[in-house]
Amino acid sequence: MSGHPLISPVLPPMSVPDLAAVKSYLLDLQDRICAALAEEDGRASFVTDEWTREPSASSTPGLGGGGRTRILAEGAVFEKAGVAFSHVTGSQLPPSATAHRPELAGKPWVAMGVSLVIHPRNPRVPTSHANVRFFSTLPAASPDSSTPRPLGSSDPSAPPTWWFGGGFDLTPYYGYEEDCVHWHRTAREALAPFGDAYYPKFKKWCDDYFFLKHRGEPRGVGGVFFDDFSALGFERSFALLRAVGDAYVPAYRPIVARRKNAPTTVAERDWQLYRRGRYVEFNLVWDRGTLFGLQSGGRTESILMSLPPLVRWDYGRSPAPGSEEARLHTDFLRPRDWVDFGTAKDR
Amino acid sequence: MSGHPLISPVLPPMSVPDLAAVKSYLLDLQDRICAALAEEDGRASFVTDEWTREPSASSTPGLGGGGRTRILAEGAVFEKAGVAFSHVTGSQLPPSATAHRPELAGKPWVAMGVSLVIHPRNPRVPTSHANVRFFSTLPAASPDSSTPRPLGSSDPSAPPTWWFGGGFDLTPYYGYEEDCVHWHRTAREALAPFGDAYYPKFKKWCDDYFFLKHRGEPRGVGGVFFDDFSALGFERSFALLRAVGDAYVPAYRPIVARRKNAPTTVAERDWQLYRRGRYVEFNLVWDRGTLFGLQSGGRTESILMSLPPLVRWDYGRSPAPGSEEARLHTDFLRPRDWVDFGTAKDR
Repeated sequence: MSGHPLISPVLPPMSVPDLAAVKSYLLDLQDRICAALAEEDGRASFVTDEWTREPSASSTPGLGGGGRTRILAEGAVFEKAGVAFSHVTGSQLPPSATAHRPELAGKPWVAMGVSLVIHPRNPRVPTSHANVRFFSTLPAASPDSSTPRPLGSSDPSAPPTWWFGGGFDLTPYYGYEEDCVHWHRTAREALAPFGDAYYPKFKKWCDDYFFLKHRGEPRGVGGVFFDDFSALGFERSFALLRAVGDAYVPAYRPIVARRKNAPTTVAERDWQLYRRGRYVEFNLVWDRGTLFGLQSGGRTESILMSLPPLVRWDYGRSPAPGSEEARLHTDFLRPRDWVDFGTAKDR
Repeated sequence: MSGHPLISPVLPPMSVPDLAAVKSYLLDLQDRICAALAEEDGRASFVTDEWTREPSASSTPGLGGGGRTRILAEGAVFEKAGVAFSHVTGSQLPPSATAHRPELAGKPWVAMGVSLVIHPRNPRVPTSHANVRFFSTLPAASPDSSTPRPLGSSDPSAPPTWWFGGGFDLTPYYGYEEDCVHWHRTAREALAPFGDAYYPKFKKWCDDYFFLKHRGEPRGVGGVFFDDFSALGFERSFALLRAVGDAYVPAYRPIVARRKNAPTTVAERDWQLYRRGRYVEFNLVWDRGTLFGLQSGGRTESILMSLPPLVRWDYGRSPAPGSEEARLHTDFLRPRDWVDFGTAKDR
């Protein structure tokens, strides 16, 4: 493992980030994901809501930006699917956002990403979430002329600090081993060109992050998650981000295709609505991105686009022992090694 | 106004709290509220779930307690009604709970209260919430022998620090002026024996607290809210708490009675489910009690008993201008003086 990029990066993370290239990739990714999901749905299509906000209109001074939120509602397959691109800038990074990097506090910054949550109608189809994002302090020698100029930077010649983050995770209502294996295998294969160590690391990160501490329960069967990633230098780190973003549709669509017409019952629908409550609990109580967005004056409708269309809560509900619902808990909602680690070259 | 208890307490808050009397009142209040609501429902009854937890079973060391959670589900009038008594003790007060009183950090403590949220079925009946609670550090010269002895207190002879908190607030889906006036008038009259200044003060506190900052929107039409209250000494402060607790049923029940059989439509039901999403957002994102409970290892099912039975989220939804739904926003979901201040003696 010596020389592995996780341990000893071949390229130092000092190469200059290409903001325009990242933005262009993200917009194209949003287009491709929406096209694939609409095709899989077969009935409904995405409606686009473009928005901009001037910094003066935000409750956080200097926070501005825009985005392209796309929503498919009441489809044949997808009850609600939201795929959002956003591009946000700030004149001063708040200390709360930089607890582990105090030297960045107060700097101007840019963040962009695509975030999506898909809530299918059939309880046999799992909910999925994916996100790819990029963050950088400014000034950057940016070819993107729409990027704001630096404001009050103490050292305008300092190189920008930047990183990528992202991942995707799956939340079934009824568990299927083959779906989980396919999901994780697709993630592992996407990361394999960058070294065998990434999938195990990002898989564990996902298990750790998407966990409801107040329930002692994972949100779902995981996937991959990473943040603060610049270890491969800009070009290769960006390639890793693209590999993850591009893998989402091949990971999810086959699962949707083979479950979307499964026979289902009213009781299964009820279980789905109840389990969706866990999704709400995670996003509103624990998800750092959601909380930071809501508390810092982000665009509420785009942030809460992730919430399910219909949800129920029941006091003290637990499934009958041995039922398929109970097996979701015992067999699926626990960290499991769905695919072998380090076998990427064998695929 | 000179000599008013808010400004110059007649009795200093040093009288010794009677924990057994508080507990007895709270249990009786829970009984009376449940009986009144079950009678108003006419079909369903409350199911009692008694629970205890040893300190060793908690994720927060030294946190133990028990409670009596009562739930009415799928009633004729109430779709879900939860009325919970809890009695929790801790061996060390966490610093996060005492930010404004650092001298209390690390002390053993006791907290008890009754908390309720009622979600009616008919969209013309508002949701209501009430809470009465008591907090004290230990050791206390407590006549309640079930109270744990102090652990590691630095000054065992120091008098306990204690306070009351509570209130009730109303969240309509369709606005009725007369309901809001009745609700607030009942609150004002309950507080009048303690001085004219309490209702305006606690009414504003309620408006300030039950506010969804990410929506720029009040949760409902308010009511009264207070915390950290010991200004009248133990006996009179406890009397004020009882006045608030006892006023809840007279404030809510007549509103339920006159709206519960109102004709309603599928579209109104849909609006109710959508508006219930705001209740979830407030409780999970902003409510300090909920968040502290979930993050400190409280009993999840009792804490989340407040969540509505069925909820929907829709992207970018807003009611048609001039509709009754739009008037909820324009005429009711803004701070208003529903009754005159300082006219308690005129009633």
